Amino acid sequence: MSNTTTGQVIKCTAAVAWEAGKPLVMEEVEVAPPQAGEVRLKILFTSLCHTDVYFWEAKGQTPLFPRIFGHEAGGIVESVGEGVTHLTPGDHALLVFTGECGDCPHCMSEESNMCDLLRINTDRGVMINDNQSRFSIKGQPIHHFVGTSTFSEYTVVHAGCVAKINPDAPLDKVCILSCGICTGLGATINVAKPKPGSSVAIFGLGAVGLAAAEGARISGASRIIGVDLVSSRFELAKKFGVNEFVNPKDHNKPVQQVIAEMTNGGVDRAVECTGSIQAMISAFECVHDGWGVAVLVGVPNKDDAFKTHPMNLLNERTLKGTFYGNYKPRTDLPNVVEKYMKGELELEKFITHSIPFSEINKAFDYMLKGESIRCIIRMEE
Amino acid sequence: MSNTTTGQVIKCTAAVAWEAGKPLVMEEVEVAPPQAGEVRLKILFTSLCHTDVYFWEAKGQTPLFPRIFGHEAGGIVESVGEGVTHLTPGDHALLVFTGECGDCPHCMSEESNMCDLLRINTDRGVMINDNQSRFSIKGQPIHHFVGTSTFSEYTVVHAGCVAKINPDAPLDKVCILSCGICTGLGATINVAKPKPGSSVAIFGLGAVGLAAAEGARISGASRIIGVDLVSSRFELAKKFGVNEFVNPKDHNKPVQQVIAEMTNGGVDRAVECTGSIQAMISAFECVHDGWGVAVLVGVPNKDDAFKTHPMNLLNERTLKGTFYGNYKPRTDLPNVVEKYMKGELELEKFITHSIPFSEINKAFDYMLKGESIRCIIRMEE
Ligand SMILES: NC(=O)c1ccc[n+]([C@@H]2O[C@H](COP(=O)([O-])OP(=O)(O)OC[C@H]3O[C@@H](n4cnc5c(N)ncnc54)[C@H](O)[C@@H]3O)[C@@H](O)[C@H]2O)c1
Ligand SMILES: NC(=O)c1ccc[n+]([C@@H]2O[C@H](COP(=O)([O-])OP(=O)(O)OC[C@H]3O[C@@H](n4cnc5c(N)ncnc54)[C@H](O)[C@@H]3O)[C@@H](O)[C@H]2O)c1
Ligand SMILES: [Zn+2]
Ligand SMILES: [Zn+2]
Ligand SMILES: [Zn+2]
Ligand SMILES: [Zn+2]
Repeated sequence: MSNTTTGQVIKCTAAVAWEAGKPLVMEEVEVAPPQAGEVRLKILFTSLCHTDVYFWEAKGQTPLFPRIFGHEAGGIVESVGEGVTHLTPGDHALLVFTGECGDCPHCMSEESNMCDLLRINTDRGVMINDNQSRFSIKGQPIHHFVGTSTFSEYTVVHAGCVAKINPDAPLDKVCILSCGICTGLGATINVAKPKPGSSVAIFGLGAVGLAAAEGARISGASRIIGVDLVSSRFELAKKFGVNEFVNPKDHNKPVQQVIAEMTNGGVDRAVECTGSIQAMISAFECVHDGWGVAVLVGVPNKDDAFKTHPMNLLNERTLKGTFYGNYKPRTDLPNVVEKYMKGELELEKFITHSIPFSEINKAFDYMLKGESIRCIIRMEE
Repeated sequence: MSNTTTGQVIKCTAAVAWEAGKPLVMEEVEVAPPQAGEVRLKILFTSLCHTDVYFWEAKGQTPLFPRIFGHEAGGIVESVGEGVTHLTPGDHALLVFTGECGDCPHCMSEESNMCDLLRINTDRGVMINDNQSRFSIKGQPIHHFVGTSTFSEYTVVHAGCVAKINPDAPLDKVCILSCGICTGLGATINVAKPKPGSSVAIFGLGAVGLAAAEGARISGASRIIGVDLVSSRFELAKKFGVNEFVNPKDHNKPVQQVIAEMTNGGVDRAVECTGSIQAMISAFECVHDGWGVAVLVGVPNKDDAFKTHPMNLLNERTLKGTFYGNYKPRTDLPNVVEKYMKGELELEKFITHSIPFSEINKAFDYMLKGESIRCIIRMEE
């Protein structure tokens, strides 16, 4: 299958961020054809994640503008560059901010998904091949974002960042698997691995934490304890199987002690999804000695230090961290999609809003106000 | 089988520590019969471990004198108290400072060996049953040490701290499995679990570290990197499969960086057997991202803090601690003994000295001078 656009520059609409914190502007952009090892896709559905917002606000993050954000999306392969064999035009696919080259020690290891070549790089605004952008407006290059830039009708990405999925899967639902949802889900299912009937504490009930709770529900955990500083998160979390709640602000003692008292010595597993160093330490210190496992997910500040007494480790607790829930994008995402297709994984409850592409700035408002978990952006209407 | 001594007080010789740091004195002690759930054993061979020395020196540790030290030993069951069903007089057994009651959540868990009832307690000098000692000299009670007190021809211990083993096993060799050797061995085999062909860094080449190296050799690791501040330890370590050596004092950069450079980004596994907080941090930070696992074994100081940047965790490193190499004494020790009987595990190389009981103070000298790994004390000549 080949399109009339193959090998041609495509003109289409993209939402361009010209300046930090300023509304995106709908622009006509030129999208160059994919080079060797690259793929051009037509995006059908994309969603907004906090990471887009952080780099758009660029408070602390390296500012890089003009830029096309967006990294959670489902689309259809339009054309492929030289040497791309696992994808053909027409394939349904998810785009991912971290990739799988297939050849590096991480891709060869069963345990790691931190590909040497395609590991996330938030400071790079160009393609790896030639250090150039594939997007331009009247000759002016527009920066990429984490190799995906899905806030555009067409985008070019490295083929290692494209997972081919079941064409029957509804892209307006499964597109949210590209980042936060898989991150939380995999943190529980792949890394914490709670046993049926066990207790799991989830720190932070944003999209990632709710996905971690969904992972605990799927794993058959019987006590799922949600911990958040904002008690208004608790009602919503019930839908995700969270059945006990702790707000650290309601207690005079450290939250790890509160949880230890609730659970006869500690939870079996804890998953931290906040980015707060204090929550990371509490999540570790609230797991039971002998068998407890704590998994860190949140992205800390540059100068944070994780600090604990080594006896907490010697008493047979395990501390781990994960990146994208330890999923290898190309190898594992098709199976996560099947989990959804079989009804084991519920995605609908994460989707709180849906808007047309032209109204994309509303998605930023919903997220900044804390109203949305995921807002789907429909590219075609 | 029953002895004429069953139910009677036994008079025998013990090496009594009357005061901190003063030579042990051979004394005639009275050993009361075992109470419910207890066992009295005739000790045939015992060995000296650093922990005996630390508590005998009592610099920092709670002093408790007079006391009978000793916690690595093999012997024969003389008589058992009421309710003891897994042991009968004549059984060959190892005594262990930590026990397995069989009934608590830790004993029921496949993952933990930290029995709630019989977990090590270095500050207790009496039996759990009645808070009394079974040892006395002319009516004066003599304190127990970690529930074992093997520097006596006869001792009384909780049955949960006694592992019945193959009677063909030479007790003058397998007695060293009671503490340090299993601790290091299990830290590697049970917790770090290196794959064949992998790289393992061992921090600290004392008895525990050499046992960790032996575990790496048995696991088929191909690079075993020994790290110690005392280079004189390296020659001996070659016997234990250690094939590369790093003395942090020989380098201007942090040892974790030296090791990362030697190993293209880090070792697959690291096992810390020093008790130094700096070595604990280095051991963690020298493992490879994506799949590296660091295991802490050394006992830290009370006010030490383990400190690292959380990104080291998020990059998919795992940090664990272990107690007694995660072995459950009663369940697992018989199998470790079989490993020795089959020639897979080499114990002879750990045994550097052997002395009669009457010369026990020499064992303390050897250890304090750093000359011995293990000194066997023969009780019967
Ligand atoms: N490791 C990865 O691969 C990966 C991928 C995506 C996101 N993340 C990270 O996961 C974290 C969560 O993402 P999100 O989108 O769900 O964020 P979010 O802001 O929607 O949710 C975070 C929640 O944590 C709560 N919180 C903050 N501090 C807390 C504390 N000390 N104790 C308890 N709760 C606390 C907040 O109230 C909020 O409800 C972020 O740090 C994000 O950067 C990591
Ligand atoms: N977790 C357990 O169940 C358990 C059981 C027994 C012993 N231990 C502990 O294991 C540790 C080792 O015991 P051992 O009997 O082998 O002790 P040891 O003193 O014989 O050996 C320790 C070695 O570590 C080296 N060392 C010290 N600081 C170092 C550093 N910063 N970097 C590199 N090397 C360093 C020393 O030079 C020495 O060779 C001790 O802390 C002991 O308390 C733990
Ligand atoms: Zn790779
Ligand atoms: Zn994201
Ligand atoms: Zn127990
Ligand atoms: Zn010991």
